[in-house]
Amino acid sequence: MAPRDALEFPASDRVFLEPHLPPLDSSATPATPSTTTPFTTLTFATSLDSALALSPGTRTVLSGAQSKAMTHYLRSRHDGILIGVGTAVADDPGLNCRILGVSGYESELESESQSLSQELHGQPRPVVIDPNARWGFSEESKLFQLCREGKGRAPWIVVTQATAQSIPFDKTRLLERYGGRFITVSSSSSDSLDWRAILETLKMNGLSSVMIEGGGQVINSLLEPPNLGLIDSVIVTIAPTWLGRGGVVVSPARRVDEGGNAIPAARLRDVVWYPLGEDVVLCGRIGGVHCRG
Amino acid sequence: MAPRDALEFPASDRVFLEPHLPPLDSSATPATPSTTTPFTTLTFATSLDSALALSPGTRTVLSGAQSKAMTHYLRSRHDGILIGVGTAVADDPGLNCRILGVSGYESELESESQSLSQELHGQPRPVVIDPNARWGFSEESKLFQLCREGKGRAPWIVVTQATAQSIPFDKTRLLERYGGRFITVSSSSSDSLDWRAILETLKMNGLSSVMIEGGGQVINSLLEPPNLGLIDSVIVTIAPTWLGRGGVVVSPARRVDEGGNAIPAARLRDVVWYPLGEDVVLCGRIGGVHCRG
Repeated sequence: MAPRDALEFPASDRVFLEPHLPPLDSSATPATPSTTTPFTTLTFATSLDSALALSPGTRTVLSGAQSKAMTHYLRSRHDGILIGVGTAVADDPGLNCRILGVSGYESELESESQSLSQELHGQPRPVVIDPNARWGFSEESKLFQLCREGKGRAPWIVVTQATAQSIPFDKTRLLERYGGRFITVSSSSSDSLDWRAILETLKMNGLSSVMIEGGGQVINSLLEPPNLGLIDSVIVTIAPTWLGRGGVVVSPARRVDEGGNAIPAARLRDVVWYPLGEDVVLCGRIGGVHCRG
Repeated sequence: MAPRDALEFPASDRVFLEPHLPPLDSSATPATPSTTTPFTTLTFATSLDSALALSPGTRTVLSGAQSKAMTHYLRSRHDGILIGVGTAVADDPGLNCRILGVSGYESELESESQSLSQELHGQPRPVVIDPNARWGFSEESKLFQLCREGKGRAPWIVVTQATAQSIPFDKTRLLERYGGRFITVSSSSSDSLDWRAILETLKMNGLSSVMIEGGGQVINSLLEPPNLGLIDSVIVTIAPTWLGRGGVVVSPARRVDEGGNAIPAARLRDVVWYPLGEDVVLCGRIGGVHCRG
């Protein structure tokens, strides 16, 4: 029998997403064969007032059951799931995939045939961007619980080269025992990392597709030039709720034209809106930045 | 021939809106027969980051041609269109209805039959909330141009009782020459007006339905208790664009529970999402305020 928390996302609802996802067989028809970065999907859920959460450090459940199942289906379609350290600290997230049929969530028949395999099929690699290694994970962190249960992979934690040299041996040992590791990326500043360098490193390490889930700081920085060009697909779920002022808001930095006048920061093209339960899902690609007149 | 700027909104697109609009024949089946306020629709267009405009005092065209036609159709279905003085000053708006068939936008055949009538059929009454009468309208204001062309009604301008006594006679005379007038509403403070008092006054003056269009201050104040209860219907258009930080944002004041914890400010129920061109239209009613767990 499948675990009680396995999720199903119906085939009929998968159709609209397909043009916005990495190709099903990435080895056969790579989406971006000549690029040095993975197929990168930016995905998150907001309120009508573009908030991810009621306040920093809190987890706010915004979207409904169908949108949640969609998120897990999206996870099954990417090699990696990426979040910032703020989200790791605030949410203690599982970052695994609970769609019926993937490793740890098989039906009975599948369980038997899969028991011969050592691979965690369908489970993406969690990636935590943590330049200064401040995430205080432990054996009790949800990610490692799921590893022990065969329901998810251990994370890769991306740090700066300077930080890498001062990580306590205990942390490295715990992480590596579960099959995770610290990954270093060179950076110009001590606090921030270069998104192109991060994505290139992940591709070199074998991730052909990465789904970026949050939090606010990560999303806003990717919606700003020059990072916009790194995003292949954007999938946003909007819930029919206003959280109110003071929340964690998705809104990129203001852009101005040559004359110093404000212009729209980013516009999507090839847009599809798909109502899902009480929410709507928006799929698109990064397009021009000018308003329609 | 119809004026070149007449708009058409197809019958097929009108169907989803119908349950969210005042009844077609308000005299026959009043929506809120026993209430003292009009059927009140809150409607506006935002970016993905919930902005109405790039900055205060500027007009930003966000939504596409189909959404614009929808707005004019909505106007044809309400007795009044209400805006705040900030929008009147910033936009010099026309606030008329340009849907093919209404007064000033008839087809040739309709023009002949209508020429006998003195009534501006299908044209809503513009209402400007201007507590301190600071809107400096003139003969050249778009609203009065449209009046001269038989394409719109003169505005009612809602002011406080204190302000009413000091309005220059010239202003009143200009306004009344076109059939508009100043309307006073009693208020507890000099700068703000009570929404219930405003809506009750409009109903007493014959408006059975009012569509509230903006701007940010007006919308945000109506999305806060106790004004939420005055809204019968919410219709929001969302364009697939991020305007960026610093825009005029729709986001009501934060709400907290008894324990001082932030809770969602407002949630919609009976939700319908309707893709329209590149935009999506959200219709709903004000519902409970709690997040799904």
